[in-house]
Amino acid sequence: MTYCVGMMMDRGLVFMSDTRTNAGMDNISTFSKTKIWETKGDRVITLLSAGNLATTQAVVSELDEREKAREDRNPSILDVPSMYQAARMIADTLRDVIARHSDTGQRASSVFNATLILGGQIAGGPPRLFLIYPEGNFIEAGPDTPFFQIGEIKYGRPILVRAYDPASSFAEAVKLLLVSFDSTVKANLTVGAPFDYHLYEADSLVRGKTGRIELDDPYYRTISDGWSEALKQALHSLPAFDAPAQP
Amino acid sequence: MTYCVGMMMDRGLVFMSDTRTNAGMDNISTFSKTKIWETKGDRVITLLSAGNLATTQAVVSELDEREKAREDRNPSILDVPSMYQAARMIADTLRDVIARHSDTGQRASSVFNATLILGGQIAGGPPRLFLIYPEGNFIEAGPDTPFFQIGEIKYGRPILVRAYDPASSFAEAVKLLLVSFDSTVKANLTVGAPFDYHLYEADSLVRGKTGRIELDDPYYRTISDGWSEALKQALHSLPAFDAPAQP
Repeated sequence: MTYCVGMMMDRGLVFMSDTRTNAGMDNISTFSKTKIWETKGDRVITLLSAGNLATTQAVVSELDEREKAREDRNPSILDVPSMYQAARMIADTLRDVIARHSDTGQRASSVFNATLILGGQIAGGPPRLFLIYPEGNFIEAGPDTPFFQIGEIKYGRPILVRAYDPASSFAEAVKLLLVSFDSTVKANLTVGAPFDYHLYEADSLVRGKTGRIELDDPYYRTISDGWSEALKQALHSLPAFDAPAQP
Repeated sequence: MTYCVGMMMDRGLVFMSDTRTNAGMDNISTFSKTKIWETKGDRVITLLSAGNLATTQAVVSELDEREKAREDRNPSILDVPSMYQAARMIADTLRDVIARHSDTGQRASSVFNATLILGGQIAGGPPRLFLIYPEGNFIEAGPDTPFFQIGEIKYGRPILVRAYDPASSFAEAVKLLLVSFDSTVKANLTVGAPFDYHLYEADSLVRGKTGRIELDDPYYRTISDGWSEALKQALHSLPAFDAPAQP
């Protein structure tokens, strides 16, 4: 499993992904699920992936290959004129990769599916955020649905639903995401630290800040330990239930 | 779907269940998922059920039938000498009901499975809490796993994991459960108010307090509205993320 979130903020885009992949319970590895393409001053494109690792790596490799062989009739992700075109290209690539492996007649115990979050900005357009399905179609974030989650989304969703604020600073957004990730990690063994983040400032057209937060990162420990206490305080601040007298 | 929780507390047992059942998205009804058997001074047994409604109703009806026809060679749930025997009887009944419907050759779009939470006390023994699987086996709560959830458990789990305290009063426990239920309701359409609760005081051997909390219950509104604010405050109380300088 996996847990990734992409959020559309007033100040830009914020991404976070875990790094655990597993084939069964006893074959666990660490892989980055964040891929960033950048052409300074022209475009920054970030892709987060959940699902079959062979599929998501094939999608990224396929896109990278095209970038290296520009003469090819396939356009590169560094050439497409808009984020919508980028989403279409990646969605088509994803669908093709899945179809290719499904056609071999091989049967795996897990399906070859993958789901992607794509966000970024290309000069001339605004920052945009997409959720791409394994069928090759996709939806775009907007004011009503300003963030996307993929993978093991349920444990970490309530805090996002309640506390997401598009006007937050990146520093506040990362804090919110760490709480959401920590809730997930505490409940599901197939999601695990370290967490990769990417903070893209709107209209900067440069990569911005990226980094990895390890399990023993002092700030993560502060959030993880502090959140239990803060939650208990929050609960304490609400009035207790007074059961009505029984008939 | 469904959401039910049974919690083992120092002061006794606390149960809560939602009441929504649905067959598809457009066939929604309200059914109580809590069943209580009581013989004052001798036993109080509470059963919460998640899964196929026909299955869970058949289990309860079967147990009620036996209670009415005591001459039958099958013992009644009002006769069994211990909570362990009660758990075995209910688990066997559940497995039999599922097997009976699976044997007809009929195929339904959803399976006939159900999962149950059983809790209560029979004179001579302590209060006990069990989780019963559709296969007819079960596990018991203890200090390490003092509560069970069934149905749509993920959204409401993080708050339980963080804030459950066996020493809480019933009033605090119901507040905690309402927060957990509210987080679930906000994320999943197949879980819905009203919520049924049962507060069983250890060693009382009488039913205790039961009731139903409606969507427009003023206390529930206070919790639901207040929790968003309290969560934001809790988040605010933690330090913001300070991204390291980029290389």
